Amino acid sequence: MDPGSLEIQGNSTISHLALDIGGSLIKLVYFSRYEEFSVDDNEEKSSKESLLVSKRYPVLQGRLHFAKFETSKINDCLEFIRRNQLHLGGCQHGGAPGSENCCVKATGGGAYKYADLFKEELGIYLDKEDEMDCLVAGANFLLKAVHEEAFTYTDGRKDFVQIDHDDLYPYLLVNIGSGVSMIKVDGDGKFERVSGTNVGGGTFWGLGRLLTKCKSFDELLELSHQGNNRVIDMLVGDIYGGMEYSKIGLSSTAIASSFGKAISDNKELTDYSPEDISRSLLRMISNNIGQISYLNALRFGLKRIFFGGFFIRGHAYTMDTISVGVHFWSKGEAKALFLRHEGFLGALGAFASYEKHGLDDSIVRQLVQQSPISASHTGYKIHGPLNGEWNDNESIECSVYVS
Amino acid sequence: MDPGSLEIQGNSTISHLALDIGGSLIKLVYFSRYEEFSVDDNEEKSSKESLLVSKRYPVLQGRLHFAKFETSKINDCLEFIRRNQLHLGGCQHGGAPGSENCCVKATGGGAYKYADLFKEELGIYLDKEDEMDCLVAGANFLLKAVHEEAFTYTDGRKDFVQIDHDDLYPYLLVNIGSGVSMIKVDGDGKFERVSGTNVGGGTFWGLGRLLTKCKSFDELLELSHQGNNRVIDMLVGDIYGGMEYSKIGLSSTAIASSFGKAISDNKELTDYSPEDISRSLLRMISNNIGQISYLNALRFGLKRIFFGGFFIRGHAYTMDTISVGVHFWSKGEAKALFLRHEGFLGALGAFASYEKHGLDDSIVRQLVQQSPISASHTGYKIHGPLNGEWNDNESIECSVYVS
Repeated sequence: MDPGSLEIQGNSTISHLALDIGGSLIKLVYFSRYEEFSVDDNEEKSSKESLLVSKRYPVLQGRLHFAKFETSKINDCLEFIRRNQLHLGGCQHGGAPGSENCCVKATGGGAYKYADLFKEELGIYLDKEDEMDCLVAGANFLLKAVHEEAFTYTDGRKDFVQIDHDDLYPYLLVNIGSGVSMIKVDGDGKFERVSGTNVGGGTFWGLGRLLTKCKSFDELLELSHQGNNRVIDMLVGDIYGGMEYSKIGLSSTAIASSFGKAISDNKELTDYSPEDISRSLLRMISNNIGQISYLNALRFGLKRIFFGGFFIRGHAYTMDTISVGVHFWSKGEAKALFLRHEGFLGALGAFASYEKHGLDDSIVRQLVQQSPISASHTGYKIHGPLNGEWNDNESIECSVYVS
Repeated sequence: MDPGSLEIQGNSTISHLALDIGGSLIKLVYFSRYEEFSVDDNEEKSSKESLLVSKRYPVLQGRLHFAKFETSKINDCLEFIRRNQLHLGGCQHGGAPGSENCCVKATGGGAYKYADLFKEELGIYLDKEDEMDCLVAGANFLLKAVHEEAFTYTDGRKDFVQIDHDDLYPYLLVNIGSGVSMIKVDGDGKFERVSGTNVGGGTFWGLGRLLTKCKSFDELLELSHQGNNRVIDMLVGDIYGGMEYSKIGLSSTAIASSFGKAISDNKELTDYSPEDISRSLLRMISNNIGQISYLNALRFGLKRIFFGGFFIRGHAYTMDTISVGVHFWSKGEAKALFLRHEGFLGALGAFASYEKHGLDDSIVRQLVQQSPISASHTGYKIHGPLNGEWNDNESIECSVYVS
């Protein structure tokens, strides 16, 4: 990735930067502010989207920016931050780079692992925030603040779900990064990591690279689109001579054993197409995550499971497999939901944590202020691209309304 | 496998043969009978093992034989049956091969898929028994009848568990074949298949073949013994710069992402040793099965999980990973138990089903008769090799005591 391609436009003021440094990817969130003004009823009603406000509110306009880098290419990330001076927003109270007042919120294991590197290269301290705290804060923020954030995925159709703020909790948050965390969320800052699995995005990409020689995660995902898992997976029908095993509800096309056909003596790796391999692998991992998620939702009587993390990437087949898995195992009782900004939960949570720690920055405090919020009195709202596909590294035009 | 190597010794009479034809393996069980006689108290007390009998009982002596073949080499299996005339025991009431009275109990999907082949090649009808019925019947039979059948595996130590027949149910039976079935067992013939996973033995062997070019399942398993999973798995410490993530109880050596280190750009498949690959794969699959098993045991409040199926093969690292997984996820509440005759549950269940259907064969009826049985009045007992390792295809000297 060419760091230059993400250069910040215009004369906007960069406010706080926040980082989520995971095992595979570094995610960045930062806000660039244009101006501060107020709107009244008339202006409001003329806007494209009807907002539930009836008084004058202070409004901040700008762009919420998102970016990602591979953790193995952390130097590209450092260069991007340096070139765009993103880290300077973190230097408070006249602090200069290198001083103790110059710090940036960061989460994920890399906040520990690369703390010295950020200090040496950019003169900033990484102010570490707990990874689970940030995932939950990020998810709650998105679910409450962002229009058309959560959606179901069924038979190739996305249906946005309007979340009633009074009926949001409890839910299960499943964040699929390199590994997978499953968190029962009961409220703002109220949560428990109840499970997880080490079969996650890193497994898909790691095993996929070894098996297909793909050069990127996205290439591997793209391949899966064209593949057929029945070539390598052992289906119920393969064992039962084309029949289903109806007594226990397994159709002939249900997968009995992922990669089970590869036990055949007369074929080796080069006899299978990378497309089919990628498809089987994606289905194995997505289905497994769907199943373990459902079993954990069941433990706690949770009806809604929100899936986040960069593994999903809005990929149709991934979401379809997870949805079908949750539906199959729960017999329709539980629902898989996806998030449009799936990959940035941790980074958004770290961003939101500036407020929590009392740093005096009005933009951030207002952006994350979450009470009082009710269905008839929305505290803030971010306008994303309407009906637009979410692309990596895309910034969103934001209006932040403060109640 | 050379079918000749399994030729039956001596002049014993072969009684019924039963088959379990799975996606990867065909399992055979048959009983060869020596003689019929009775023992009294004195004879009994002088036997090596103390049996809880106090009266004279009819005794049948012979050998219970076990054999397996790869399903892809079914012709070897047919040849073995033909050469040893195992199928003739199934010809009742003067039936000859080819007549409708000549049938053999069979379970697994292959009982459907290969029914015509057995008819054409051996002139026998496969009398199909439900796969789950047979797994449960086989497990119940072993747990009640066979001395030192179930054991725990902790820190490399096998501890045999004496099962109190009055306190056997309910339990979770996890059969790991090509795929995995999880069955809640509440009594004889009382059960429900509550879950399963398509990440099973076929996945280990299929993916393992593609990644290592191993020629057999056992070779792949052997390789894992010498491998180190930390070479390819992404550990918590790899993400956290050597630190643990103590807040959620993950040590630095916990696996965050199976195969997660293989995302690295500068290595490809040939840079990793087959030993390390096999180890990571085995750990990924064993741990995943342990976790899903535990979550299902939790759903129904089951404290004991018995693991069967040919995936395990008495392999130390597999059992250790499953045990540790169940212990970790259940915080010590649930217990993983293993079965010495793990691979033959289905075949034993099919064998036992001769009785259920009223075929007039005293050996089988007596062998499977299961009531009345109490701790103080054991109905039957099979003597296996004392403290011996269980080997594939090994027959057991049996004494069948009938109450």
